[in-house]
Amino acid sequence: MSGREFFTARTVAEALAGFRPAHRTPVEDVPLDAALHRVPASEVVAPSLLPGFPRSTVDGYAVRAADTYGASEGLPSYLDLLGAVTMGAAPTVAVRAGGCVAMPTGGVLPDGADAVVMVEYTAETMPGTVEITRPVAPGGGMVRADEDVAAGAALVPAGRPLRAPDLGLLAAAGVTTVAVHARPRVAIVSTGDEVVPPDTVELRPGQVRDATASALAGLVADAGGEPVFAGIVSDEPGALKNRLSEVLPDADLVVVSAGSSVGARDETAGAVAAIGDVWCHGLAIKPGKPTLLADCGGIPLVGLPGNPLSALVVFGQLGVPLLWRLAGCESPPPPPTTRARLSRNLASATGRLDIVQVTVRDGVAEPLFGPSALLSVLVRADGYVVIPEPATGLDAGMEVEVVLYR
Amino acid sequence: MSGREFFTARTVAEALAGFRPAHRTPVEDVPLDAALHRVPASEVVAPSLLPGFPRSTVDGYAVRAADTYGASEGLPSYLDLLGAVTMGAAPTVAVRAGGCVAMPTGGVLPDGADAVVMVEYTAETMPGTVEITRPVAPGGGMVRADEDVAAGAALVPAGRPLRAPDLGLLAAAGVTTVAVHARPRVAIVSTGDEVVPPDTVELRPGQVRDATASALAGLVADAGGEPVFAGIVSDEPGALKNRLSEVLPDADLVVVSAGSSVGARDETAGAVAAIGDVWCHGLAIKPGKPTLLADCGGIPLVGLPGNPLSALVVFGQLGVPLLWRLAGCESPPPPPTTRARLSRNLASATGRLDIVQVTVRDGVAEPLFGPSALLSVLVRADGYVVIPEPATGLDAGMEVEVVLYR
Repeated sequence: MSGREFFTARTVAEALAGFRPAHRTPVEDVPLDAALHRVPASEVVAPSLLPGFPRSTVDGYAVRAADTYGASEGLPSYLDLLGAVTMGAAPTVAVRAGGCVAMPTGGVLPDGADAVVMVEYTAETMPGTVEITRPVAPGGGMVRADEDVAAGAALVPAGRPLRAPDLGLLAAAGVTTVAVHARPRVAIVSTGDEVVPPDTVELRPGQVRDATASALAGLVADAGGEPVFAGIVSDEPGALKNRLSEVLPDADLVVVSAGSSVGARDETAGAVAAIGDVWCHGLAIKPGKPTLLADCGGIPLVGLPGNPLSALVVFGQLGVPLLWRLAGCESPPPPPTTRARLSRNLASATGRLDIVQVTVRDGVAEPLFGPSALLSVLVRADGYVVIPEPATGLDAGMEVEVVLYR
Repeated sequence: MSGREFFTARTVAEALAGFRPAHRTPVEDVPLDAALHRVPASEVVAPSLLPGFPRSTVDGYAVRAADTYGASEGLPSYLDLLGAVTMGAAPTVAVRAGGCVAMPTGGVLPDGADAVVMVEYTAETMPGTVEITRPVAPGGGMVRADEDVAAGAALVPAGRPLRAPDLGLLAAAGVTTVAVHARPRVAIVSTGDEVVPPDTVELRPGQVRDATASALAGLVADAGGEPVFAGIVSDEPGALKNRLSEVLPDADLVVVSAGSSVGARDETAGAVAAIGDVWCHGLAIKPGKPTLLADCGGIPLVGLPGNPLSALVVFGQLGVPLLWRLAGCESPPPPPTTRARLSRNLASATGRLDIVQVTVRDGVAEPLFGPSALLSVLVRADGYVVIPEPATGLDAGMEVEVVLYR
């Protein structure tokens, strides 16, 4: 183990708590139909109350509740039918003592009414007279004008990504644009003399296509970011530093998919140290130890390990929460999980976070082993098990939580 | 309870099993960077093996493993340094018995070598001679040319939405376009004389803005579909039938957000029956009973209840899996869930699926009650608890699974 990698090693917990972005992305107005999963920059307040009028929630008759007290099948109340409410229109008649008005679900309650009797408990036995066979309490069969949202109340909170029902409530309130944090722009820089673009048809011996950048772009998009492919940089001295200087002004986060060799990692560390402050070099996580975190003039930079699997594991643990924070969200949406029994013992070192890829069948989590150079392990996995930092391992047969990929 | 609603009532389980789309959406080629969460129409096969050459996974020296047997700190093996491998290039030298070649991580193994000794277990004590202090087994410190993917093997399966690591493996294999099912186009038709567009500034008495369409569009997008707003249709006889005839030719799924009154629901049922086969009218779910399912010449149609909350619950239970099926995916990505203790008893009727909105704090699920006309209940909820069809309720203190919104 090279001493160089650990000169400022940290745990993942330390990195999550301490390596935090100084800024948030700017605020922009987006139309409602582009606002799904975007993060409101501030609480959105209701311009007026909702539904905005006392509204029937059943088909039936608007009444004064007191006129129905004691009504039963055997001894119904009889009320005068005074008229009918039309959907989407103001009532043209009020309810007086001893009277009722026919109501559709969703209609405006007439003045004088304080409840709606469901049609199931009524009968129009004679023209102009309605028989009521069950009492209704004041407020029954209706919602108040401010029952869904009071004027000045929050429609949606700041900092929580907007969900589908939120869009509905905003629409109901007439809020058709929302001030949200801009999607964080994530510059993805690949490095390595051996790395060529994915569309390279014929590889020369020793060349590999850039797998990590495409996979990272997917993780970035899933976390609400906007991936920007910033190309492949050779291991030539100075090349990475120059590219970083070019991409930093337009990025909210820079991710360097570092070369896999010690030499390439040292080159990355040198380039980053030349333009920013290295926060840590070496992370107590497996896979993913050779991770570098730096602050480049307020822009966070994550230097990932060269192995694709390690790089994606580290980005999932650190990059994803960082991205949400950049967009103003401190509690990212939770991933899907399931409980399963471990098929075998898993060893770990105390003080290190272990991420073990697993398949899940019939409630059994089967670890997938293999060199972290193998991306196919991640493709075959259904999810992963976390062995927390204090633990020295997990025992076969234990019930564990599996974080599922989706 | 109106008899009309239950003339062909079904359980949710029956609907999931029996109301299935006859067709799948067409197949289209998309570039890799637009393929996230899209569903491959067929297995994608590796055009060649990966990584494509025997590759070092450590920094060190390529050796014949047999030359290291018995090596220890006290009694090292000494090997002749024959040269070095350069990243991204073919080796210019082979390994012979008693020799070794310096290797970067990710380099091509030279001919004659069958393992790589990590640099940590070596020392170049004299120029041209490398001391080996730990033995390595054949295959150690390297991956075979076909260890990530064998030629002809599946890179990603058909029918499973593509995840970020899948994009990486496809990129590594040089697959830069993928044949996927088209996003299902979902025509969202709103109905009701009282319903006006969300951008209506001043409401007349009794009018409400269309909340359901915006929220449905969010659920559709989350399930990989493409929402198409098909406007608001009045309750005038014939209007809905005409609109449905217009939207059906360009839709893979039609969703009608029905009016809330009995009259409006009957109008919807009549319009749908005129152009398609009603599969069920009435679903044993709460909220969401007045749901209508129909087949309109091969295009599934879902008639949702008029209350926004009910409509969204039903669409989540039935519309979302239907959408994934239309796109060729039988097992949709799982939602996030958590375990929590119920704060109070929940009653239910046997044979009916109950969906109860809850908040979750400190491991306790607190049911949110209120008329299903209130969209704010859904916005305040963290998720929901399902009371299965056979159950008559759930007891306070029970541990339940909460499906979380995200």
